[in-house]
Amino acid sequence: VPPTARALDLPALVKQARAGRPRSLARLISLVEDAHPALREVMAALTATAAPAGGGTTVIGLTGPPGVGKSTTTSALITAFRARGQTVGVLAVDPSSPFSGGALLGDRIRMHEHALDEGVFIRSMATRGHLGGLTRSTPQAVRVLAAAGYDLVLIETVGVGQSEIQIAGLADTTVVLLAPGMGDGIQAVKAGILEVGDVFVVNKADRDGAQATARDLRHMIGLAHRLEPGGWRPPVLPTVASTGSGIAALVEALDRHRTWLTGDRLADRRGRRAGAEIEALVMAELRARVGRLRPGPRLEDLAAEVVGGRMDPYTAADILLRAVSAAGNEAGGECVSVPNDNREQ
Amino acid sequence: VPPTARALDLPALVKQARAGRPRSLARLISLVEDAHPALREVMAALTATAAPAGGGTTVIGLTGPPGVGKSTTTSALITAFRARGQTVGVLAVDPSSPFSGGALLGDRIRMHEHALDEGVFIRSMATRGHLGGLTRSTPQAVRVLAAAGYDLVLIETVGVGQSEIQIAGLADTTVVLLAPGMGDGIQAVKAGILEVGDVFVVNKADRDGAQATARDLRHMIGLAHRLEPGGWRPPVLPTVASTGSGIAALVEALDRHRTWLTGDRLADRRGRRAGAEIEALVMAELRARVGRLRPGPRLEDLAAEVVGGRMDPYTAADILLRAVSAAGNEAGGECVSVPNDNREQ
Repeated sequence: VPPTARALDLPALVKQARAGRPRSLARLISLVEDAHPALREVMAALTATAAPAGGGTTVIGLTGPPGVGKSTTTSALITAFRARGQTVGVLAVDPSSPFSGGALLGDRIRMHEHALDEGVFIRSMATRGHLGGLTRSTPQAVRVLAAAGYDLVLIETVGVGQSEIQIAGLADTTVVLLAPGMGDGIQAVKAGILEVGDVFVVNKADRDGAQATARDLRHMIGLAHRLEPGGWRPPVLPTVASTGSGIAALVEALDRHRTWLTGDRLADRRGRRAGAEIEALVMAELRARVGRLRPGPRLEDLAAEVVGGRMDPYTAADILLRAVSAAGNEAGGECVSVPNDNREQ
Repeated sequence: VPPTARALDLPALVKQARAGRPRSLARLISLVEDAHPALREVMAALTATAAPAGGGTTVIGLTGPPGVGKSTTTSALITAFRARGQTVGVLAVDPSSPFSGGALLGDRIRMHEHALDEGVFIRSMATRGHLGGLTRSTPQAVRVLAAAGYDLVLIETVGVGQSEIQIAGLADTTVVLLAPGMGDGIQAVKAGILEVGDVFVVNKADRDGAQATARDLRHMIGLAHRLEPGGWRPPVLPTVASTGSGIAALVEALDRHRTWLTGDRLADRRGRRAGAEIEALVMAELRARVGRLRPGPRLEDLAAEVVGGRMDPYTAADILLRAVSAAGNEAGGECVSVPNDNREQ
């Protein structure tokens, strides 16, 4: 028995996490981050004891460019939710490298005002390496917090890349934050962010240019969203998160969206989230198989052929694909093993 | 015979593209963007007639946050390379949604000063949907421009997400641009950008805070890069691209890096680029198989089971994985078909 397996009393850990014990929650989320082999068992245990479908946890995603005030806004939202007695779990997702992951979380310190509040659980999730890892680990971490019964889970992601947007888009309600004077306002809302946002916030609204930013944003939302009858029209709200100004209106908008999001709409969003999670597990397994192909036609050898001009990339891909399929058939079991996404790519 | 297949005279198109005819180049890159079924044949033809290994085209990646002056810097670099008689192909990669892809390329206009120069080819590549598409299409587009004999290919990517960095990292030399006063300088250099940069530029260096930004950057590079004997120490260069100030020093740094990057180092970088391209083709095919699984245990059905708490995600992933493998075996041919990544999630 390997030492990690001996040290883990999974049933006890899951039970304590479901009771909301912060250390057990943190431990489970570490297993998620590390793509630990025990995850399979953890997720099965959480499912077996899960709340009924459409359960109580509302998942809110926040995304926006660096420096826009996401952490301050998250902190203000925590205060507002706590004031009405709701419990809050926060996942601060950082699509960064192994190096910068640990070192650059200083801005999270702003959230430490909630550190002694038992109704709040805050966790930074820095991925290590392959981005597919976050597509897998974020919904898994949400699953852990939902099992612990938090009323709300906030997923805060840094950046406005396709990937960060995908992660934020896994929420029930996605909040996109912008601020005036962050370079070109139009550039800041590129990259699919208009389609994914349910609620838009122009933070630092006491600064010059806030109204122009909000106006541009409303115009572009009008172009991007074709409003259907009964559809949701994403509001654009000014806030000054550092003073709490506008936060009440933001909370009200989140409530309105959550009320709008019922029945099929809710099932659709949550289905997409689960679908992304399942697909991430499958793709991670397939990617791991690609990585394990040695001493056969390994990726590096094929790449060298392509670089040398002796083979075209499609022929190389065919060979690799065949080897991946063969490896799967030989393995026989055909089960998803350790996700292993952190160590790939 | 479908109309697109009839309209395509591939051998002629490839021949004209190799002769540097801009319309044929544009046509081939459109095939790349659209993940056209003929790509397999195009890539085989380009490989069969390719320049010898280690061929003449140097690939330079530029990345950095929105508003930092990437297009202006690219334009200034084009001018400098043209002044010494080199030909330049530019791929402006925009990891954006179908909606914003076309509408937001206004900043490319700055590069139109080179529009009448026959030694310059500029192309915006807006992906549609899945990000894996850019991991595939960018190296393929580079392959097209290299076959046409451009001395340099510049890949400009918007944003500093993991994905944009991966794309920029596919170059021989990667330039990371920052500017003073873009929110928190430390936040801007998150997300693995320090590891991927060979040359760092603080553009808009005539603005307040430029020296502080450069100093912070040097400090962080010092932490991120452990310098080995004969290793490359990434310089941090001030520029004002709009006036051309500092561009000569940037070109000199690019030359120095290219000189340093010989033998195994060059083969290693190009091998990684080809490897990423091959893997993207394989993963796109596998992802397409996941999408084609109907009416079997489709992803949506499994997701609904998981949302309903009736199945855990790993069990769902096992079922999907088995179905993917079975689909591959039935297909028999086991060849990578149309990449199809643009239409997948």
